[in-house]
Amino acid sequence: MAGNLVVGQAGGATAVINASLAGVVEQAQRSGRFSTVWGMRRGAEGALAGDYIDLSRVAPAQLPAVAATPGAILGSSRHKLDDEEAESVLADLIRRDVRAFLYIGGNDSADTVHRLAQLAAARGYDLSAIAVPKTIDNDIPETDHCPGYGSIARYVANATLDSAQDTESMPTMYPVKFIEVMGRDAGWVAASAGLAAPDPTSPPHLIYMPEFPLSRQDVLADVERVYREHGYVVAVVAETVRDETGTPFADPGVSAEVDAFGHPLLRGTADTLVRLVQAELGLRARFDKPGSLQRMSSRFVSPIDRAEAEEVGRAAVRLALNEMTDCMVSIIRATDEPYTSATSYVPLANVANRQRLVPEEYVTADRRGVSEAFRRFALPLLGAGALPHYVHLRDLVPA
Amino acid sequence: MAGNLVVGQAGGATAVINASLAGVVEQAQRSGRFSTVWGMRRGAEGALAGDYIDLSRVAPAQLPAVAATPGAILGSSRHKLDDEEAESVLADLIRRDVRAFLYIGGNDSADTVHRLAQLAAARGYDLSAIAVPKTIDNDIPETDHCPGYGSIARYVANATLDSAQDTESMPTMYPVKFIEVMGRDAGWVAASAGLAAPDPTSPPHLIYMPEFPLSRQDVLADVERVYREHGYVVAVVAETVRDETGTPFADPGVSAEVDAFGHPLLRGTADTLVRLVQAELGLRARFDKPGSLQRMSSRFVSPIDRAEAEEVGRAAVRLALNEMTDCMVSIIRATDEPYTSATSYVPLANVANRQRLVPEEYVTADRRGVSEAFRRFALPLLGAGALPHYVHLRDLVPA
Repeated sequence: MAGNLVVGQAGGATAVINASLAGVVEQAQRSGRFSTVWGMRRGAEGALAGDYIDLSRVAPAQLPAVAATPGAILGSSRHKLDDEEAESVLADLIRRDVRAFLYIGGNDSADTVHRLAQLAAARGYDLSAIAVPKTIDNDIPETDHCPGYGSIARYVANATLDSAQDTESMPTMYPVKFIEVMGRDAGWVAASAGLAAPDPTSPPHLIYMPEFPLSRQDVLADVERVYREHGYVVAVVAETVRDETGTPFADPGVSAEVDAFGHPLLRGTADTLVRLVQAELGLRARFDKPGSLQRMSSRFVSPIDRAEAEEVGRAAVRLALNEMTDCMVSIIRATDEPYTSATSYVPLANVANRQRLVPEEYVTADRRGVSEAFRRFALPLLGAGALPHYVHLRDLVPA
Repeated sequence: MAGNLVVGQAGGATAVINASLAGVVEQAQRSGRFSTVWGMRRGAEGALAGDYIDLSRVAPAQLPAVAATPGAILGSSRHKLDDEEAESVLADLIRRDVRAFLYIGGNDSADTVHRLAQLAAARGYDLSAIAVPKTIDNDIPETDHCPGYGSIARYVANATLDSAQDTESMPTMYPVKFIEVMGRDAGWVAASAGLAAPDPTSPPHLIYMPEFPLSRQDVLADVERVYREHGYVVAVVAETVRDETGTPFADPGVSAEVDAFGHPLLRGTADTLVRLVQAELGLRARFDKPGSLQRMSSRFVSPIDRAEAEEVGRAAVRLALNEMTDCMVSIIRATDEPYTSATSYVPLANVANRQRLVPEEYVTADRRGVSEAFRRFALPLLGAGALPHYVHLRDLVPA
């Protein structure tokens, strides 16, 4: 393969999206098969504007620092190319003799890659258009899991453990705690809170995932039951959780907004539940909303996740060198103990604009917790030393 | 000194309040001078109910794990003893032959210790009532700083760095980020965000502390100016920030609530500012509200803070053994480079119910950032390896 390679980053930044970029640049430089490795600024926005930067100039010795830096170093965006824009981008790629277009992103970015691949094929232009999976939502189908998920799961499990220590410390003052986490339509991030519990009686007592709608009365009954049983309540709630009519719990005054992809921009789910519990049960409640910290904390990066994020970047370059196109790198779990994985690829038609939700087998019968099957799936992704061990008074001074 | 020792934990839990407890128990056990070391459950609530647990049974080998566990292992509360309750607690302490009463807490707890000390003196009962300082707010006077502050400062500086990476990654989508942090009436916690900035042009661009009231127009003018200059805005805001009339920015529907000490229970400051900026400037804004995570994250504990928290616990026992009373352990900064400190003590009359606010010399002239003097004060408290080094595109591919 001659010509040039373009790589870009799209969608919400994560703690390991730069690791995938480092993997791409490393493998592309090492292959010696590309004249120039171009970085696209701000995802599709940069492609439209012809805003590229020469990453061939990046010294290999700097790549480990890139891989360790959270955020999208090239800049990211949620802009989705329409047909006309895709035509314009392709024409520019052809002018620049770009033969490999690698795009690190989630479901929506996969659609952009798919569109470019099909358009290039229709024009008879040899372009390897490859999607590199990345999303904390873990909702891309046809891959065991998504780079970014292991690190946010590590963050959320730790945050749940820490926040529960707080609530357990002051049950008479603030007995109810909600922790609001991300996840769009899927409950994978919320589910990872369940990894904090060493046994079924430990917090989190309740996990609310968007896959399983629930009424306000359900929440009140849950909180009251757990409070009676444990004296305090730690509940983890996906920001997109909905009631039985499909209406988000989030403040409707805000949820009417949508992002550039038409996804509702939700805020205030935990805030809404705090007010509900205080008003209806008379229990003082508080919430933590780590927001972007949950997907950006370099201190909670899973070493497994970072290594896989780099590897899917390298694998994308190898696919391009083999002149593959219209596909996404996927991760295959090779062995469970010890956990090992390998990369493969799947056609983008199977991936673009589809979502993988949390299946019933990964939750408990009451849909308020996670199953052993989920723990077997998710725990290895957090990497070694993921969770600290805390002591309790009952361990120190047995009754 | 014969008799027994009682130790309790009060106020909001922190990541190092158990380190102080471990310091007390270790020194008390080692002295061999107390028949029993009692732990008071849930602070003053436990003292009122006679709910004590025998900490003499804790094995010394378990104390390091106690010190490494965030949260108040004995349980905490914000209950403040009134005169009648103090009489009742003292009567119980006398019955139990308690000669040392050590209370780990903030300004309000210092008041409870002061009251007990004075009451015991008035009754002619020999009681060493000692306050062990603990507050993330860092607002106790007469001590260089408070145990708990170094760790929350480390958390907030890291959170600011990570969250800024996110905003810098997607400036065209979400150009404005507010990070809401704790601090009650004092801006020490918000100020620590300034430690994230390696230079004056780096985020955070704006820090809002409760010491310096500002109008909604000020916020809008600040955000617009920073946005024009940098293309994105990272602002750190204390949850208690007030406007020029003294009214909190937080949603008044919630801020009308007060906690057991009569402090307003505020929520929604960042949420309010997000809505303001979106409505008035048309800039998309988001907020992170780490809530209790900022004071409970074991992964962000400052090693300096943990060591000092243990040491103030030990120092309190030594004061009791010297039959001191009505005083608080204080920290004195011994040397700046390398940072070293020692403990001393101050009369509780100088401490109880007083607050130390951020002085003018610790902020920039525009009161939107921190000064070099603040950096010299605060940075050593975060301990070694406090902040990661992130790379930027400009470092990799110089223009």
